Formats: sequence, structure tokens, C-alpha cells
Amino acid sequence: MEKHFDKEMSLLKERILYMAALVEKQINFACRILLERNDSLVDEVKHLEEQVNRLQLEIDDTTVGLIALHQPVAHDLRFLVAAVKVVAELERVGDHAFNIARFALSVISQQQIEPMIDIKAMAAVAQKMLRESLDAFVNNDPVLAKTVLLEDDKADAYRDKIYSEIITYMKENPSSVPVGVPLLMISRNLERISDNATNIAEEVIFIVKGKDVRHHALDEK
Amino acid sequence: MEKHFDKEMSLLKERILYMAALVEKQINFACRILLERNDSLVDEVKHLEEQVNRLQLEIDDTTVGLIALHQPVAHDLRFLVAAVKVVAELERVGDHAFNIARFALSVISQQQIEPMIDIKAMAAVAQKMLRESLDAFVNNDPVLAKTVLLEDDKADAYRDKIYSEIITYMKENPSSVPVGVPLLMISRNLERISDNATNIAEEVIFIVKGKDVRHHALDEK
Repeated sequence: MEKHFDKEMSLLKERILYMAALVEKQINFACRILLERNDSLVDEVKHLEEQVNRLQLEIDDTTVGLIALHQPVAHDLRFLVAAVKVVAELERVGDHAFNIARFALSVISQQQIEPMIDIKAMAAVAQKMLRESLDAFVNNDPVLAKTVLLEDDKADAYRDKIYSEIITYMKENPSSVPVGVPLLMISRNLERISDNATNIAEEVIFIVKGKDVRHHALDEK
Repeated sequence: MEKHFDKEMSLLKERILYMAALVEKQINFACRILLERNDSLVDEVKHLEEQVNRLQLEIDDTTVGLIALHQPVAHDLRFLVAAVKVVAELERVGDHAFNIARFALSVISQQQIEPMIDIKAMAAVAQKMLRESLDAFVNNDPVLAKTVLLEDDKADAYRDKIYSEIITYMKENPSSVPVGVPLLMISRNLERISDNATNIAEEVIFIVKGKDVRHHALDEK
């Protein structure tokens, strides 16, 4: 029974990592629409979203089934309850990627403006945070999870920089408003992906240490 | 044991409703900063956020404890797993309310512009959806939950209307950019509150019907 449970836990982790890989692909495609001005990738993002949504349902079912059948306690129970939340975060990341794709289409139908460069760097930060938070989750690695919490400041700094740059640019170049606003929306969606990664990292520390560091995680640095 | 479990489930629902009431209060205060141009309410929003964060930790602990101790199955287990997700949604609503408060401060430090009126109506829709989704959750009411899913279209329509109104306004009145952008951000945060309510409503239908309608809920209307 115990061995069977361990095997099912391994399979669950594999499915979560597979879902994370699809979501990461979604972010990549969505950002490439903007950065390569390539609108043909929208269908890929949409197709991946459907797969991601189906995976959430499947993983949730598996998780509830594991709790009902094996009645785990302590670390295993905390991991399974956290898994349901982590998967919900991943699904939201997929939504943000889809939003980025939609706003990117709006941007590339218009003239290119200056602040685009920071969006590329911000996307790299968000993707790195997401990858690390998932690695920390499946490998029970609270040290890596803490790294993710620290990186969130970087994402916030990019967000604030882009926000004020775009406001200044639009004020001085009113004709750029219809492209500046969707760029701003893309930066906000990237920031939300960093937030999702932060939420996942906080779950990791909760599971591993058996205490809840959410909402005061940064007091402990 | 069974009776004891029922009592603990009732207490859990009460705590979730209490958390929801605090979050609703947060949204109210945040919107009043904007609509009454009253910056003194920011401290209230911040103070409520701390309470809401503490409540999430407390409710999560209680929920994991109930699963470990009573090893519920079927409907009760689905309710408890959903409770963890519902409480996470509520905590996010609190974050959105805090964002609204911050952007409202930025707006009221400047000249009033036209599209504000729709933000008031949009806030009313988001608050109604949130209240109904929570009522549906604690009362196991899938009919009310479906109403919430239908109302999300209304929130999306407001979001799109405000988006294009503000873009047009800023393009024609470049000096309004620094107030138009935070107004846009407020409308986006209100839309996200509607999304949180929708997520809660989808959990209700999942618990009550014992099947997962998320991601294809609207096919069933």
C-alpha cells in the first residue's frame, strides 16, 4: 500500500511538471507574438490553454482520489492540499499567457514603441521564477523556493519602471496610446505570473517546514 | 464523532463567511477612496488586508486538520478541498482591493475625468458576484452559482467599454494619461474580482454535482 502510494505521488508530480511545461510553452509563444511580431502563434497559445485546463481537472481528480483512498497525514497531506492550489496557480498562469497573446496581437498591428525591450527582460524573470517555483515544489526544496520570493522584487521593479515609462511616453506621444496601453497590460500580466510563482514558492515552504510562511515570508530572509 | 464533524464544518463555513465580509468591506473602502475622493480610508484597507491574510492561514490550518482527523470522503472531502481554493481566491480579492486603493490614491490626486461613472457600476457587479458566489458556496447552491457564471459577461462588457473609452479619451486629451492609466488599472482589478467570484462559483458546482464543470461551465447554460 505504502509503495503504491509513493508511486502514485511520483506520477502526480510528473503530471504537474508536464502541466507546468505546457504553461511555460504558452508564455513563450505569447511573448514571441510580441517580440517577433508573429501573429501565427495565437492558435498555439489557445490550443495549449485547452490542454492546460483539461490537465487541471485531471490532476484535481487524482489528488482528491489520493486523499480519499490513502488518507495521508502530515507532510503527504500538506503536499496534496498544496498540489490543488499549485495547479490552480498554473491554470491562472495559462490565462495570463492567453491575455498576453491577445494584447500582443493588438500591439503588433501598430507601430513599435520604445519600452518594448524591458518587457522581454521582465518575461525572462517571470519564466525563471515559475520554473524554479515548480522545481522547488516537486523536489521539496525550500531553499530554491526562498530564491523565488527574493526574485519577486525584480519583477516588481520592472513593472514600476515600465508603468512610468509608458505613461510618460503616451503623454508626450498621444498617438502611441493605443499601443502603449496593451503593452502596459502585457507587463501587468507578466507581473501576475511572477505573483503566481511566488504563491507556489510559499506553498513549498509551508509543506516542507510544516508551518505557514505565507504573508510573512519576507520577515524570515 | 459525526456530530462533532458537522459542528466543525459549520464553524469553518462561518469563518469563511467572516473572511468574505472583511474582503467585501475592503472593496467598499477601496472604491470609496475613488468615488468620494477620500484618501483617509487607505489605512482601513491596509489593516483589513492583514486580518484577511491571517484568516487565510487560520482557515487553511483548520481545513487540513479536519481532513487529517476525520478523513472525510465524497461530498465532505470535495467541500474541504474546495474550501482551501475558495479561501485563496478571497485572499486574492483582498490583494485586488488593495491595488484599487493604491490606484485610487493616484487618481484622486489629479483632475476628475469622464469614464469614472462606469467604474462605480462595475464595482457593484463585482461585489454582487462575490457575495452570491460565497452564499452559493456555504449553502451548496449550484443554481445561484450558475447565476454568478452568467453575470461574468456583464463584468467583461464593462471592462471592454471602459478600456476603449479610456484609450479614446487619453488619445484626445494627452494630459489625462496619468489619471486615465490608474483608472484603467482599477477597472482591471475589478474585473479580476469578478473572475475570483467566477472561480468560487465553479467550485460550488463541482462540489454539489460531484463533477467538474470548470472550463466548460458555460457549455451547460
